Formats: sequence, structure tokens, C-alpha cells
Amino acid sequence: MNFDKIPYKIYLNENEIPTQWYNMRADMKNKPAPLLHPGTHEPLTAEQMYAFFCEELVHQELDDTTPYIDIPQEIRDFYKMYRPAPLVRAYCLEEKLKTPAKIYYKFEGNNTSGSHKLNSAIAQAYYAKKQGLKGVTTETGAGQWGTALSMACAYLGLDCKVYMVKCSYEQKPFRREVMRTYGANVTPSPSMDTEVGRRILEAHPGTTGSLGCAISEAVEVASKDPGYRYVLGSVLNQVLLHQSVIGLEAKAALDKYGIKPDIIIGCAGGGSNLGGLIAPFMGEKLRGEADYRIIAVEPASCPSFTRGVYAYDFCDTGMICPLAKMYTLGSGFIPSPSHAGGLRFHGMSTTLSQLYHDGLMEARAVEQTSVFEAAEQFARCEGILPAPESSHAIRAAIDEAVKCRETGEEKTILFGLTGTGYFDMYAYEAFNDGKMGDYIPTDDDIRAGLANVPQFPGNEFEF
Amino acid sequence: MNFDKIPYKIYLNENEIPTQWYNMRADMKNKPAPLLHPGTHEPLTAEQMYAFFCEELVHQELDDTTPYIDIPQEIRDFYKMYRPAPLVRAYCLEEKLKTPAKIYYKFEGNNTSGSHKLNSAIAQAYYAKKQGLKGVTTETGAGQWGTALSMACAYLGLDCKVYMVKCSYEQKPFRREVMRTYGANVTPSPSMDTEVGRRILEAHPGTTGSLGCAISEAVEVASKDPGYRYVLGSVLNQVLLHQSVIGLEAKAALDKYGIKPDIIIGCAGGGSNLGGLIAPFMGEKLRGEADYRIIAVEPASCPSFTRGVYAYDFCDTGMICPLAKMYTLGSGFIPSPSHAGGLRFHGMSTTLSQLYHDGLMEARAVEQTSVFEAAEQFARCEGILPAPESSHAIRAAIDEAVKCRETGEEKTILFGLTGTGYFDMYAYEAFNDGKMGDYIPTDDDIRAGLANVPQFPGNEFEF
Repeated sequence: MNFDKIPYKIYLNENEIPTQWYNMRADMKNKPAPLLHPGTHEPLTAEQMYAFFCEELVHQELDDTTPYIDIPQEIRDFYKMYRPAPLVRAYCLEEKLKTPAKIYYKFEGNNTSGSHKLNSAIAQAYYAKKQGLKGVTTETGAGQWGTALSMACAYLGLDCKVYMVKCSYEQKPFRREVMRTYGANVTPSPSMDTEVGRRILEAHPGTTGSLGCAISEAVEVASKDPGYRYVLGSVLNQVLLHQSVIGLEAKAALDKYGIKPDIIIGCAGGGSNLGGLIAPFMGEKLRGEADYRIIAVEPASCPSFTRGVYAYDFCDTGMICPLAKMYTLGSGFIPSPSHAGGLRFHGMSTTLSQLYHDGLMEARAVEQTSVFEAAEQFARCEGILPAPESSHAIRAAIDEAVKCRETGEEKTILFGLTGTGYFDMYAYEAFNDGKMGDYIPTDDDIRAGLANVPQFPGNEFEF
Repeated sequence: MNFDKIPYKIYLNENEIPTQWYNMRADMKNKPAPLLHPGTHEPLTAEQMYAFFCEELVHQELDDTTPYIDIPQEIRDFYKMYRPAPLVRAYCLEEKLKTPAKIYYKFEGNNTSGSHKLNSAIAQAYYAKKQGLKGVTTETGAGQWGTALSMACAYLGLDCKVYMVKCSYEQKPFRREVMRTYGANVTPSPSMDTEVGRRILEAHPGTTGSLGCAISEAVEVASKDPGYRYVLGSVLNQVLLHQSVIGLEAKAALDKYGIKPDIIIGCAGGGSNLGGLIAPFMGEKLRGEADYRIIAVEPASCPSFTRGVYAYDFCDTGMICPLAKMYTLGSGFIPSPSHAGGLRFHGMSTTLSQLYHDGLMEARAVEQTSVFEAAEQFARCEGILPAPESSHAIRAAIDEAVKCRETGEEKTILFGLTGTGYFDMYAYEAFNDGKMGDYIPTDDDIRAGLANVPQFPGNEFEF
């Protein structure tokens, strides 16, 4: 092991936790397209959004001009419980790969939610509390977001209603119990609690649910009780804003040692982690101050960036949510049963979609077994057991480092290690037993998914 | 939240990771009693121990005069992957308890093994590698130790054979898969691989195993193959030595801010965490430089300190291992099915037993449901989901802090948070569902356990 002057982990001090979030949109020449009302196809107004989102979060959602937004002291106090997150120099992985590349990863898994989701969960819960609400509702699939929100609500004394996709509720009982330990009310979706749930259960008695259905239930509950609002862990502009702490901290740690990354890599599902990690770097790029190669890594089973179309589409499969302009496989797309539940979303953040459309970042799709090969290699030398989602970024980072070995280039690679895999051991078991498969949708699968994309003037697309 | 000048987390720098382990025994006036040969009742010689332990570890096991022992650079490099571990000021818990007490905890769960076990696993694996061995064998019950050893062996390229108590193997498949992901060979015990396993399976065809049986199998495999040695995660002097990094780091962090704890609390199963946490503090106490109240917390279901006898006894239920002088419930004691698997050991470290016998520390036993109440309270305000074992220390820390509220004393409490509870969600589920029980052995249960304690001159005891 050759430890040079850079420590294994670069920790910042507590007083170096960012005091402001950075809003990439302020520096974008082409702003992300606004959310549209699904009925009128007109941009949603703040007043329309107040019905289901907290007021201050609506302002953050719509604000595309203010570059820095103060982080309230209460949120910073909570951040101190698990931040600053370490920036780790992957010395052991570099040695294993025999690469001249220098690899760094920002590790966001050192908290009980096991992922970066807590960064936005505490912010959203805080604004709900500040507005005097009784609680919040949300959906969760893989469970990271529901866990994070439960923790934030327990801390603030807010009620937390989580609609958990029924098959996850049954297959991931441990995730469910973590949420319950934090006091959340966890309901398998579809449930008999809501109109939409009852309607779906009547039509499909044995269904094990879907994220789209769980969203619909959570939204219905929030919209019927004035003491509640609906919160979401990805896709939205406000979420990317809160997640900018990841990138701001990573950049501050690198700056301390005068390190400038050549390549920045993040996994991409709805975009929360990737958007947060790249924020300050993309800001420099947008302002013409520096250049970086930025790579979004998505699963080959759910390839929104690399095979989707850029169009207005529903965010939910139930088609009751607003329309967002994004790279999408269509709200009717049914992702195959990949183990990276957090990346199984048909669409993508509108902000990231605009940046990708403008050629400011790249994207690539990787296959599941190659992702777990990377995960295992990483775990054995770096110690951390990565989440399947995070391992998509590891795969691409290893691939880039191996290219450096071949070319002899000493590139500096930064990737986001979003979380840990403790609740994904069925996936690791399948991999350990050689029973893991790769699922790649056919063009016909995607065509079928796109069938529900709404047709209206200006929303033409080709596939 | 009232954050005073002490940060939420006191991190040390990498160059502040201890360079030497501290050996409490060097400062003990009454040395811990030596291990005895089970046949002759004579102290085991180094040569006898070489058959199953690595040579350098035998020297550490027997050395009760050298106060500081250098930590090899390779081990320190590994420590950098997850150390220094944070010392956390429990501001949120203090506020919740409305106590004037100042509570600190040393968090050892920020690594994939999820506990402090890695501190000794890497040391033992390193000496095995240095001796040119092919691999090591061990047993695991709850799984923390097996996971830690798997990680250390993966890092060093050593073979790792883990005998896992069959009921744990089946009930904790996720623990098993983590070990497999790190390349360990995990065998449910009893197995057909060993003579002792075959004998037990023949006598008890449906048995789901026991820690005692798994120890016997691991020892048999190591003793028959000259390329292997047996390693153990607790009880032994060498383990307490390696675990002293916990206490050394905690003390260094406290010293930075001029903080002197009044009370130091740790959970106690075999003693690895407690012995490590208290080491430098006990050193000061032994040398008459300072005084501390030191409290060992054990489960009421397995109360070696508080209800056991101080006598020579077998370390394993199979009665093939050496005799150790310790507080014991008898190697025949069958602990009730508590969820804190890591604390279900009938005996106790000989070093800690001597210190307790000499009145240098206290002990108390706590009941399971009250432990999980403390765990839940802690999780909801401090964020971290604690392991059931660690939660024993939380229970006692909360109890002491509440006493301070009643008396108005501003005591400083330090406790060891040994690990996380991600693989203990069945236990949390039982608690969340109100289905958790408390199991307290009767005097007759303990009397039955003590039936196998060997009788020989000098080993008289009363119960």
C-alpha cells in the first residue's frame, strides 16, 4: 500500500458543512422545463402546488435564478449527526486494479438510512414542521427513502405515513421494521385505506403493487387531509438542491488538497444522488470556469438516458401526477426485476435531462451481473459493502480506471458511493450462487412503455 | 439543540490512530490467572498453544508485563479504512432526557462488519499471514465476528473457514451472504466435515448446533491442517489487547477537549469491547493516576458477572478447550434465546474477571425489553440503529443520565456503541410487535450449568 500525502479519508470539520445549498438551475442557460398540469398542459402555478407540497418547498421547486439558498440552522444541526461524509481515496482498489488513475469516492452510506436520501428527507420534514403540519406521506420501493424520511420525522416529532410497494413490504421485512422502529406508519400498497387502493385491489385482487400505485395512494392521503403534505425522494428540483451538499462537501475536501477531478461518475435513477454530486462541478462548467467529464450510469434494464425519449411524460404509472419534461421510457414501461430498486424509474430529473440534452454530461448503461462483479471487487478491497444502486457507479469507475491502466494516463476519478447494501443480501445471494440474470428491454418493450406518453403540440418525439 | 464548544463528533486525524496497543495486564498488581491444560490442570505453555494459535498471538496472549506493543504498519493501514472511529457527543439524547449529564459514545459500527470485531480480526489475520499460513478457522454465532474475519482475510488474501451455528446460518442468511461475498467458506455447524461434527450429528440427528460445537469443529479443522490456525473474537487476552484501540482513541479525543469521564460503560459478553474501551482508563486507575466508575452491562438472561462464580471453567460447551479462570455460569449453562447473540457466553475474559474480583469495576444485568426500549429511544434521537448488544450499554447510560437529572449532577458519561443492528431486525420486529419476552435464569438453571465446572484443589467455589 502506497499512502502518499493524501489521507485515506478526507474528513471536513463540522464547521465546514455547507451553510448554503447550490442551485444549478441558476447557472443554466437553458432552464429545465416547468412541470405541466396534466389536464391543461399549462405550467403548474405555485398555488396549484401548495395543495400537495409544502409552501417553502414549492418556492425551491420553482426557483431557477437564486444560485445559493441558506440551509436553516435546524437542518444543519441534523446534518451534524452524520455529516460531513468522508471523501475516501480508494488506495486499495487502485492497487488491486494496478491503475495509475487516482480514485476518490464520496461515501454517503454512514447513516442508518444507509444512503444519501437523508439529506433531502430532513429538509422536507423540516419545512413541513415549520408550516405547522401534522405529518407527511410518501411512497417507498426499495426502502431507502422511506427509512430516511422515518428518521427525519422521528427527530422532528412529525407523523410519517409510508406506502410501501406490497412486494417490497413482504420481501424486505427488515426495511419495514427499521421504519417502524423510527415510528413510521408503514402500509403495504395497494391498501384499503384509499380510494385508488380499493379500486386497484378490486380490479386486480392479487396484485403486489407498484411504485406508481404507492405514489397515487400517498398523494391521495395528503390531498385529503390538510394536516399532511406529500414528499418525494428524487426527480424534483428541490431534491437535487438539497442533495447538493454531497457535491459541495466533496469539492471542499478535494480543494483542500488541490485536487481537480477529470471524471465525475454517479448512478442515475431519478437523479437525486447524481444531481447532488455534480452540482458545484457542473456549476463551474456552466460558468465556463472549468471542465469535467460527467458520466451518469444507469441499469441496462431501465435505460432512460441512453434509450429513452426526451418528452413530457407522467412521473407516475397511475398518470395522476404532473407532467415533467425528461428522458423517459414512458410511464407504462415496466422495468424488469433488477435488484437496484432505487434505479427502477422510467423517467429522470428534468434538470439532469436538460443538461444531458445540452451535451453537458454523458450517460452509459451497465448490466446487472457486471455491476455485482464490481461490487464484490470493491467490497473485498475497500471494505464497504455497497448498495446495488451505488455499484453502478463503481462499475463505471473501475472501467475508466482500467482504461487508464491501458493508456498510462493518471486521471483523477471521483464517484458517488450513495449507500450500503445491508438490506440487499438476497441480491448478493443470487450473485454468490451464480443465479443472477441480466435483463435488457427490447425496443418493443420500450415502445409499449411509451404508448401512454401524452400527445399534444410541442410534445412530439420519435423512437 | 444547544451545541456548545464540543463538536457533535470528535474525529481524530489518521495520524492520531494509535501506533501501539495498550496491555492492561502490565499494570495489574494481581495478574489474570493463566489458562490451564484441561487434562493436567497445569498452565499451558507457549509450545502447547502453537498447535492451534499463531505464534506471535501466543506471545501476546502470555505477555503480562509489556505495557505497550507496537501495531504493525500493515494493520495500521487497514485501520485507516474505517478508523479513527468517531466519538460522538449525544446532544440529542441529552436533550430528550433533559439531563444535565454529558453523554459521549465511541461508535465502532461504521464498517461493514458492523461492529468493533474488525479491530482484532485484522490483527489475527495479519499474524497468520506473516507466519506463512494458508488460512484460519473460526466459529461464529450472531455473525459479527465471522463477518469481520471474512473482511480481514479478503483484504490479505487468506483463506477463511467459518463454522456458523446452524440455527444462525438458517435464521441469519444475510450475515452468511455477507461473509460469502467476502469470499469466506461458511459451513453450518454441526457439519459432516469434522469428526466431532459427525459424532454430534449421529447422536442428535436434528440438532441446530451450538457455539460450543462450532468451536470444536473450527479447532479440529485447524489442528489437523498445519496450514491453518484457529482464531477467536473475544475472551482472550490478545483480543482485549487489540481492542484497546477503542479506548485509546476515545481517550485521545476526550483529552483534546480536556474532558474527563466520570462513568465508563460497556456491554459485556466475552469482554472484547468492554476490555478495549476501558483499557487506558483502567490503566490510569491501576497506576493510581485517576479514578473512574466503570460499569459492565450484561443481559439478565446470561449474567456471568452478577450471578456467576469465579472459578476455572471450560471456554466451550464441548469441554475440549483450555480452562480459564473467570466469572462463569458454567460451560453447561444454556442461555435463553436472547436477541443479543454476541452476549450469550457463559464465561468472561479472565482479565476483566480479575479486575472485577479486585473491585476495580462494577457490573449490572439488564432485561431485554428495557434494552430495546433504550435502543428505540436512542435510534429516534441519535439516528443510529444500535445492535442489541450495544443497546445494553445504552440502557445503563440512560439510567445513569436520568439519575443525574434527579440529583442535578453534571456527570460525564462515556459508553461504547459497539455496532449497528441492521442484521437484527427480527429482534426489532418482535419488539415493535410487543412480542418480546424477558428471560431470567433461575438459581436451578445456573446450578445445572455449573455442574460441569471441573473440581480440583484450588478450584472450589460456592453457589
